[in-house]
Amino acid sequence: MHVRDRGFYRLTPLKDALKRLLPGIKPAESEVVHLEQALGRVLAGDVVAERDSPPFDRAAMDGFAVKGENTFGAAEGNPIYFRVVGEVLTGGSFDGEVGEFEAVRITTGAPMPPGTNAVVMLEHVNELGDEIEVLKAVPPGKNVSLRGEDYRRGELLLRRGRMIQPQEVAILASLGIRKVEVFRKPRVGIISTGDEVVEPGEELGAGQVYDVNSFALAALCSATGAEPVRMGIVRDDYEEIRRAIKETRNVDVLLISGATSVGKRDVVPEVVEELGRVVVHGIAMRPGEPSGFGYVGDVPVFMLPGYPVASIVGFEALVRPALQVMLGMPPEMPYPAVRAKMSRKIASKLGRRDFVRVRVRATDTGLEAVPIRTSGSGIVSSLVRGDGLVIVPENTEGVERGETVEVRLFRPVELFSLFNTGPEK
Amino acid sequence: MHVRDRGFYRLTPLKDALKRLLPGIKPAESEVVHLEQALGRVLAGDVVAERDSPPFDRAAMDGFAVKGENTFGAAEGNPIYFRVVGEVLTGGSFDGEVGEFEAVRITTGAPMPPGTNAVVMLEHVNELGDEIEVLKAVPPGKNVSLRGEDYRRGELLLRRGRMIQPQEVAILASLGIRKVEVFRKPRVGIISTGDEVVEPGEELGAGQVYDVNSFALAALCSATGAEPVRMGIVRDDYEEIRRAIKETRNVDVLLISGATSVGKRDVVPEVVEELGRVVVHGIAMRPGEPSGFGYVGDVPVFMLPGYPVASIVGFEALVRPALQVMLGMPPEMPYPAVRAKMSRKIASKLGRRDFVRVRVRATDTGLEAVPIRTSGSGIVSSLVRGDGLVIVPENTEGVERGETVEVRLFRPVELFSLFNTGPEK
Repeated sequence: MHVRDRGFYRLTPLKDALKRLLPGIKPAESEVVHLEQALGRVLAGDVVAERDSPPFDRAAMDGFAVKGENTFGAAEGNPIYFRVVGEVLTGGSFDGEVGEFEAVRITTGAPMPPGTNAVVMLEHVNELGDEIEVLKAVPPGKNVSLRGEDYRRGELLLRRGRMIQPQEVAILASLGIRKVEVFRKPRVGIISTGDEVVEPGEELGAGQVYDVNSFALAALCSATGAEPVRMGIVRDDYEEIRRAIKETRNVDVLLISGATSVGKRDVVPEVVEELGRVVVHGIAMRPGEPSGFGYVGDVPVFMLPGYPVASIVGFEALVRPALQVMLGMPPEMPYPAVRAKMSRKIASKLGRRDFVRVRVRATDTGLEAVPIRTSGSGIVSSLVRGDGLVIVPENTEGVERGETVEVRLFRPVELFSLFNTGPEK
Repeated sequence: MHVRDRGFYRLTPLKDALKRLLPGIKPAESEVVHLEQALGRVLAGDVVAERDSPPFDRAAMDGFAVKGENTFGAAEGNPIYFRVVGEVLTGGSFDGEVGEFEAVRITTGAPMPPGTNAVVMLEHVNELGDEIEVLKAVPPGKNVSLRGEDYRRGELLLRRGRMIQPQEVAILASLGIRKVEVFRKPRVGIISTGDEVVEPGEELGAGQVYDVNSFALAALCSATGAEPVRMGIVRDDYEEIRRAIKETRNVDVLLISGATSVGKRDVVPEVVEELGRVVVHGIAMRPGEPSGFGYVGDVPVFMLPGYPVASIVGFEALVRPALQVMLGMPPEMPYPAVRAKMSRKIASKLGRRDFVRVRVRATDTGLEAVPIRTSGSGIVSSLVRGDGLVIVPENTEGVERGETVEVRLFRPVELFSLFNTGPEK
């Protein structure tokens, strides 16, 4: 029986599709990159502190290192005298032990000399040759950063699967790590199909449209931490699509957009079934219903709809979770969520998951999510007019006007006007 | 009078510092990049549609294109007959005019033949040689995507200053744009100072710590859309810092971290004053108080604190706004904000802006922001333990326990457990 003949009349819930997809996804191997190239990569192993940080007790102020207990009782009218026995500068160290009522001149960041445990700030000291008058008591620990107060040797600082952002770069540098073990970027082959599809930059003939999907999917792969390989546009022809898939080399994942529905020329599922096997075809979600996946050899092949918005939602729903699992990350969408009140009712179907593009706007009573009115998943502009997605889960028939929803922001949104704490212009 | 002697005893409010900084910042020139390299770049000009999209009325279903009015009254028991006069496939076009009660076989995405305005789906048709029985009425426009329904010629789709994310790539591709005019990435020179500072990967001697700032600042520059140029570590020495600044070539901005406070060895402000001018030194914020900026020639020079967290906050508060203005973007932090209740009181000082690192956690009653307890801005781990920043503005003395605050998320946070609509594993 042809795949096509099975049709879509049994749609698979997205949850079930993911249950059949994710356990078969293998994590990528690891590779080593320089810390300066590590931004946006994903850690392939846990990072454990190999030493304490700071590695020694250090001065948090310029001043004099003393034994704090010796200063007890010191005040403006009651100076306590200390003998200055040396100086320790940032980057240096002090040899020998500092005795009772002795002091060492110290700069911020320099290691505390043995025998001292507090720093008297310069403004609370009178300098008298090789003696000082201390005019204020400092308890032990005052103006000192203690060894290990940032992190301690053996502490788990970053887990495998964490994407390296600037703050992770900071902690890796503080550990002295110059080379970082990260997951190799999964290579994702991307094929666009369609007799009407033309490469951007070329002339558009009658009945033709530009290829959106391979560029959008490539960008989504890059943003997810994978390496896209655009493999061009293939006509809606069984043999040509078959040849394009068979000629694919050195990819970990293959994405094919278009020709995945149940029409006469929707031949992709049949080709995949011939060359390997289709696992799921037709998913209970909107947009993106004609999505599915299978395998050719051991390469997961994702069949995505031809309409750009549906193709992008298919990526978010199916491909992103798989790529994130390959990178040791949790499969969920990484977009931060804000809560907003729905500006109007959205109808959905029980058993189907809907991905609704919305704009977010600030009102006097809080944030409001305004659905972008579109008549279909060919409406690319809905993505740039929108700020995020509202997901209507399978177990509801929609969202009422005024109901609070979570908006997954797929781009940063300026909400400062509402709260007025951002840097003003 | 030396800069140092002025001290910090007059701190400039951040708002005033930005007012003195941003009007002097010039936008970067533009350059042209290929669409495939455009992700993360910033548009240097508005993008206006040069044609309608879709460029023609097209079928949204496989079926037969007809004049909708001719189908009125059709039903299962009352078929209306149409003569099939041809076929139009996706990517092709139909020559000639379709008459009354004539039909053209059509595939999804194909242009509607002249004279037709609706598509009858295959399931509502009986095919009888060169005739069909239409069993259901279709109003004009049914199953048709109208020319221009996505966007119309002349429409402003993307504004100058918009960062190109996957959805912007999609719309640019749909416009047929292969080459995109973007702002040239500002080149940012980065110097770390400190006698105690050692390059990661080297051995750590007594009293030494690894260079965190130049790596963290470089990563922040990259993430902001700029091009970092790490220029190495310079000792806390007037002459060496002076030489390093003078030898700087081909940068649009210079960042120097460390030696910017008011201690004996905090020589950076003096060097900048000698080679150019210091505009602001000492800002009423915490952490990051010893931040400031000036100019050497026409290059803005940012003086950032040596402590990593303070240096990063100094970047967020001063450098990021300037880089974003160079890239035609609004100066505000791009981190999405969520609302959360503060888990405990935070004290702040009137007139000072505090940047508090917090973790966000889901509770039964909503999100809670938990301040990371740290004893100072040397605590790098507070950045990887935290999810975001709470900004306590100048006009308050802190935040009460239970008060609702905005958290700027500097990394994606999984909040799905709360709402349970994300893709399940």
